[in-house]
Amino acid sequence: MTTIPPQDTDEVELERLLAQAAAAAGPWGDILPSARAEALRAVADALDASSAELVPLADRESHLGAARLTGELARTTFQLRLLAREIASGELFHAIVDRADQAWPAGPRPDLRRVHRPLGPVVVFAASNFPFAFSTAGGDTASALAAGCPVLLKAHPGHLQLTARTGDVVAAALAGSGAPVGTFVVFYGDEAGRAAVQDPRIAAGAFTGSLQGGRSLFDLAVSRPTPIPFYAEMGSINPVFVTQGALIARREQILSGYVESFTLGAGQFCTKPGLLVVPESAGVGEDLAAVLAGRSGTTMLNDRIAHGHRRVRHRLANHPAVEVLAIGSEPADAAPDGPPAPALLRVSAAGLVRYADELLEECFGPTSIVVTYTSWSEVLDLARALAGQLTATVHAEETDPGVGELLRVLQDVAGRILWNGWPTGVSVTWAMHHGGPYPATSSPMYTSVGTSAIDRFLRPLTFQSVPEALLPPALRDANPLGVPRREGATAAELGL
Amino acid sequence: MTTIPPQDTDEVELERLLAQAAAAAGPWGDILPSARAEALRAVADALDASSAELVPLADRESHLGAARLTGELARTTFQLRLLAREIASGELFHAIVDRADQAWPAGPRPDLRRVHRPLGPVVVFAASNFPFAFSTAGGDTASALAAGCPVLLKAHPGHLQLTARTGDVVAAALAGSGAPVGTFVVFYGDEAGRAAVQDPRIAAGAFTGSLQGGRSLFDLAVSRPTPIPFYAEMGSINPVFVTQGALIARREQILSGYVESFTLGAGQFCTKPGLLVVPESAGVGEDLAAVLAGRSGTTMLNDRIAHGHRRVRHRLANHPAVEVLAIGSEPADAAPDGPPAPALLRVSAAGLVRYADELLEECFGPTSIVVTYTSWSEVLDLARALAGQLTATVHAEETDPGVGELLRVLQDVAGRILWNGWPTGVSVTWAMHHGGPYPATSSPMYTSVGTSAIDRFLRPLTFQSVPEALLPPALRDANPLGVPRREGATAAELGL
Repeated sequence: MTTIPPQDTDEVELERLLAQAAAAAGPWGDILPSARAEALRAVADALDASSAELVPLADRESHLGAARLTGELARTTFQLRLLAREIASGELFHAIVDRADQAWPAGPRPDLRRVHRPLGPVVVFAASNFPFAFSTAGGDTASALAAGCPVLLKAHPGHLQLTARTGDVVAAALAGSGAPVGTFVVFYGDEAGRAAVQDPRIAAGAFTGSLQGGRSLFDLAVSRPTPIPFYAEMGSINPVFVTQGALIARREQILSGYVESFTLGAGQFCTKPGLLVVPESAGVGEDLAAVLAGRSGTTMLNDRIAHGHRRVRHRLANHPAVEVLAIGSEPADAAPDGPPAPALLRVSAAGLVRYADELLEECFGPTSIVVTYTSWSEVLDLARALAGQLTATVHAEETDPGVGELLRVLQDVAGRILWNGWPTGVSVTWAMHHGGPYPATSSPMYTSVGTSAIDRFLRPLTFQSVPEALLPPALRDANPLGVPRREGATAAELGL
Repeated sequence: MTTIPPQDTDEVELERLLAQAAAAAGPWGDILPSARAEALRAVADALDASSAELVPLADRESHLGAARLTGELARTTFQLRLLAREIASGELFHAIVDRADQAWPAGPRPDLRRVHRPLGPVVVFAASNFPFAFSTAGGDTASALAAGCPVLLKAHPGHLQLTARTGDVVAAALAGSGAPVGTFVVFYGDEAGRAAVQDPRIAAGAFTGSLQGGRSLFDLAVSRPTPIPFYAEMGSINPVFVTQGALIARREQILSGYVESFTLGAGQFCTKPGLLVVPESAGVGEDLAAVLAGRSGTTMLNDRIAHGHRRVRHRLANHPAVEVLAIGSEPADAAPDGPPAPALLRVSAAGLVRYADELLEECFGPTSIVVTYTSWSEVLDLARALAGQLTATVHAEETDPGVGELLRVLQDVAGRILWNGWPTGVSVTWAMHHGGPYPATSSPMYTSVGTSAIDRFLRPLTFQSVPEALLPPALRDANPLGVPRREGATAAELGL
């Protein structure tokens, strides 16, 4: 068992890992989906079996608590099993078969068959705030492996011991399932991370973290001689809009739900609600202060994040348009970099729109802003002023006037729109979209949570008139894998 | 009717067009798919009805001949109709419905419903070599409009009159179908094109043309404060591999097919076969020279392209590893920039691999290289030395040794693999993939031909627990549009 903090990966070692990953790409990509699914299930089983070791290790490095981390590990292994089921089902092939058709308009159609296949080795940058679900064996790793791509996992410096041990468990389970050497490997250090993104053997990258970190890696990826897809999830402000009608119907529930959501995990969620947009006339300030009273600080993931939170909070709180609405309980002798008590700031909707450039910044941690409006048009103006978001939430009654228009505006802003809920839950399903327009992510087209996350690491390939025996199994007439396939209509069927 | 060459679009005019497109995005994106399909069909009908005017105009500006251009226009209008059918079918929504499930592993699942929706205004850069099919109303325009995105079409300077007239026909047909002002507009000039790519109102770009042009626009698109997807199709060398077995079985057919394919349209196809890889022992040189003998030059699209072809051909022909194998008939007094007779160069497979950086360059025009090999391992080495390609073709007998391995290598190289065919035909179907790894395109994930081209201009959006009445029609329980939808399994159904 590794006990000293792993060293940064040097050039020689990185070269070895890249060569291994490149060599693994063919065999791992061509393995039968059922075998790849079996390997992913073996990883899930091995992680579950290591829970007693991994959860305390994660707690020691992340301060997130055993209960949350146990749940997070369960989510992580469920994710692996759901993706295993998805690849075994053959959905990831997105197979289409257009049979030859002499009568096809604009010239005879040859036999055309399309399948999706793995891109090649992927570099994954682990996040700090979910040491299991968005780290070593998290969604990016799971979906790249599911796609058939070897993974080089860049460890997050916030939980190095956990990363090393989780990496051992994953690699051993894959090896035990017959995956080639190099299918999964952990490496360390920002410099090695940047070198990997620029290596010609790397076919794609994935990242969860800050806007600054994500954008700088994205810039490296797209400015290579051969640009590669780079999927960065870079956080979000996650506005929550509340109507007068909703407050009348469920005032307490909404205000306590809000506080629960923005303080969950010390506010260290990319889907933390950063704005609660409420009618000024509702006077929610005192109620919120009452809910917050007595809530003490929680240790954050690490000092860097704690300092970052305090810096942004300080800047926001001291903006002339902003006031401090409420703050939890902090001992008089609290260290300035100690666990921050949760805090709520307040600004008017008009003020927020006016100073959007200064105030619409993610404050990663237990701080959120209550935005008060005096008219619905202020709400719409604010919605239109938002940059891309992972989520946008509306608490309303179905019959509230203007709520349809608000939803229409939010469709252009967010990757997920919630109704009378809280964005901090991100269910792993088929229809989940954890993504959104920039700066929430580097590409609005892709999700990093849910089964569709696999698609980030696949590309289409079409076979024209290739004989049955030389086609990949998913495209053969006999369909030996039982893959779901779309069959293109003939000209006669089209009536064109 | 416009008769003077259109002026470059100035800043003021571009601003007006961008504002119009931004205003059109909502209404055009939200229109019912059946109505959008109807509008696309109206465009197709109007173009067909204008054939007698447009084809001669196209011929005058492109020299491609009335027969080819008539066929190309038919292909263009079929494409519009096929995409119309695709959107009317509801496939483009990629709808998924996961109903709430209290028993969902890792926490209760809320009701989650995902749909794809338009990105917003798209700037399309027209190509020179298909004045209909990859220009004003070509595949990029058709698929962006089908997706629900307004289109700003940057005219190609090679056929300005045709572009202006085609643009009038398209805009009038759209207006007549109730599309909002700004749904489609033509603009002119490289500077305006670069400005449009960088405008915050533009959500995506598409381009067909040279590597240099495509890459420079891609670089602008990804280095914006808010990067946008930019789909550049930048040409290809399109290698064709021929086994000894295939030559024994179909020698004449293969050699004449090759000459037909690389000289088609004066070689001005992005899928022109640029390499014919044949056994040295087959001695195809004389036969090819015989087929080529007497073939005279064809006027190319324009002087710039003619000069570019001659420059690259000259450079390749004078490389020490290359010899001129055969050239068609050119009068002794031919002007140096006159119509180039088709030409074949020759290099050994080993020489081509050795000088890959100098020799593996697209020579856009009626020039191709015959590559001779003395062993199958030379063939595999060559295949592995190739950069990304739109197509790779194999002429072989199914039982030829090593052919399976060649196909496996080519899967990593190309977007489409053809068997005993020629790549210059690109059928518009569901399974077509006209794309491929860089430098064939800027993204290996997308096609610019076929129904999937629409997906380039759509992004997912998930609705969580949103009431029926506020959901987009495609996601409502009642499914009023009859959209095909995937239904996520419940935990009980999964057995997880």
